Amino acid sequence: MNEFNVIDKYFIDRQTQRRDVLLSIGDDCALVKAPENTAIAISTDTLVAGTHFIADAKPAWIAHKALASNLSDLAAMGATPSWVSLALTLPKIDEHWLAEFCDAFYDLADYYGVQLIGGDTTKGPLSITLTVQGFVPEHRALARSGAKVGDWIYVTGNLGDSKAGLDVVLDSATRSRPYSKELEERHYLATPRILAGQALLPIASAAVDISDGLISDLKHILKRSNVGARVDVDLLPTSPELREFLADRQLSKQYALSSGEEYELCFTVSEENRGALDSALAHCGATYTRIGQIRSGNTLELQSNGKPVDWQLEGFDHFEEQVV
Amino acid sequence: MNEFNVIDKYFIDRQTQRRDVLLSIGDDCALVKAPENTAIAISTDTLVAGTHFIADAKPAWIAHKALASNLSDLAAMGATPSWVSLALTLPKIDEHWLAEFCDAFYDLADYYGVQLIGGDTTKGPLSITLTVQGFVPEHRALARSGAKVGDWIYVTGNLGDSKAGLDVVLDSATRSRPYSKELEERHYLATPRILAGQALLPIASAAVDISDGLISDLKHILKRSNVGARVDVDLLPTSPELREFLADRQLSKQYALSSGEEYELCFTVSEENRGALDSALAHCGATYTRIGQIRSGNTLELQSNGKPVDWQLEGFDHFEEQVV
Repeated sequence: MNEFNVIDKYFIDRQTQRRDVLLSIGDDCALVKAPENTAIAISTDTLVAGTHFIADAKPAWIAHKALASNLSDLAAMGATPSWVSLALTLPKIDEHWLAEFCDAFYDLADYYGVQLIGGDTTKGPLSITLTVQGFVPEHRALARSGAKVGDWIYVTGNLGDSKAGLDVVLDSATRSRPYSKELEERHYLATPRILAGQALLPIASAAVDISDGLISDLKHILKRSNVGARVDVDLLPTSPELREFLADRQLSKQYALSSGEEYELCFTVSEENRGALDSALAHCGATYTRIGQIRSGNTLELQSNGKPVDWQLEGFDHFEEQVV
Repeated sequence: MNEFNVIDKYFIDRQTQRRDVLLSIGDDCALVKAPENTAIAISTDTLVAGTHFIADAKPAWIAHKALASNLSDLAAMGATPSWVSLALTLPKIDEHWLAEFCDAFYDLADYYGVQLIGGDTTKGPLSITLTVQGFVPEHRALARSGAKVGDWIYVTGNLGDSKAGLDVVLDSATRSRPYSKELEERHYLATPRILAGQALLPIASAAVDISDGLISDLKHILKRSNVGARVDVDLLPTSPELREFLADRQLSKQYALSSGEEYELCFTVSEENRGALDSALAHCGATYTRIGQIRSGNTLELQSNGKPVDWQLEGFDHFEEQVV
């Protein structure tokens, strides 16, 4: 089986054709058409075996993680996903691996109505690069730069589970702890907050998805918006499973602050718009929690019981901290 | 230096902002806007060290090859390039390497007016994945599927140089042959035929860029157009440098047929449109040569002096034939 057979077998005619895809896989380029009065949101993410996942992780989990992490970037802009390109580098052609990878990939893509429009399959060390695209109303995307002094800071869902799941992946001794299996799955099978992002479009002043860790990602908002923030670590939402797994309340909070690859949204909302949050997010199935407030200055202060905390924590950075 | 410092130093504010880029590098997504009444052409290509180039090749050559090969897919559709996303996976942060890579990348991008709008930098085995986008008038792209029986088959430029250049890269014994240095450069520094592709938009019935080898790529046209072809190998254009390097006329023709990564265009033109070719291509600086004709049936026949030739040749396939 060569490159072209792989493309024919696994990547052609697997999905319903979107009407805005004029030409899909099989030519030099795909041809697509964007709706009028919309901007196109584009994001690219690479997952490399040994850096972002272990090479023998389930192919279905790798596929889900790759696409979910990329869709999460669209969610953070409030965009509606439309197209995705897949660059898949494989050490060899393993049909069992490919079949499982593709089934999971199309499951998630179909759920969000995203069509695979092209890509490249090459030989080399296992890695996956996706470029996803979606639509946002012109001049209305959720950028990182819109946070204002006084805005409240929120996150969707719970934080910390992904880092605990990574512990399970990397250290087999942790498998005996409570909920290790659930947390491992949570690490790979995050839900991109597409619906929440769309609902937040008219409400939030800034948003980011939590891929590097809450501290790092919130700092992106602060830097781009030229503001500071105070976060109350006692308010950080964590799952009961995480708290049982770690059996340490303070450590749970530290996990919530630094856990990367959560794919929850962190967003800011003005006092004026707070009231609209409930009805906007109620239909999305996304819980949300207020964790702090935007302030003047350019520092991020962590507080507990009204006193500053000074834990040693780093945002997740693939160059400073190799995962595996 | 971490991932974010790399992005700030090498990828921010390096180019003139296009007016259709509403938000560039630095947020969760880029935001762009396509002109009305155009389709967007999108192509993704991956280059992996050890498969598509040797890891210690000049960073400037790697950058050029990566971007040129991807722009070449736009050229084959007749598209006007606009935006590019870069996923760069590096084993370590080597500032000298990055500086040289980026200079060459922006040189070529600026030449074609393509803006880098985003991407991802990750740690892992060296590889580069680019997603380029461009515009074509709606319902007017040069697809692979439009070739008709009787159409003439053309190629731009000369063929075979890239394969000879690869010989030089892989076998140091060939360095003593004439023009080895020029051919090595030609392998890395191909010119994407953007202007020729645009000029061919109203004239050609089908087009493909020669990335896998003339035979393989012409077969893509034949398969998608459901036709056959006869190619006269005596007509294949080769450079004087190639002929001197190989010192064998028949071998030169075989190189022309199978050389991958040429990034010349192969295209078909009806008898009716032949006359328009000269004036359309004259201003592009691209020479072109008629090499055969589309026929009924579904076979590709190679002919020399009116007789069939039956050389053993394979199109270039990264899974069947590892380059290095």
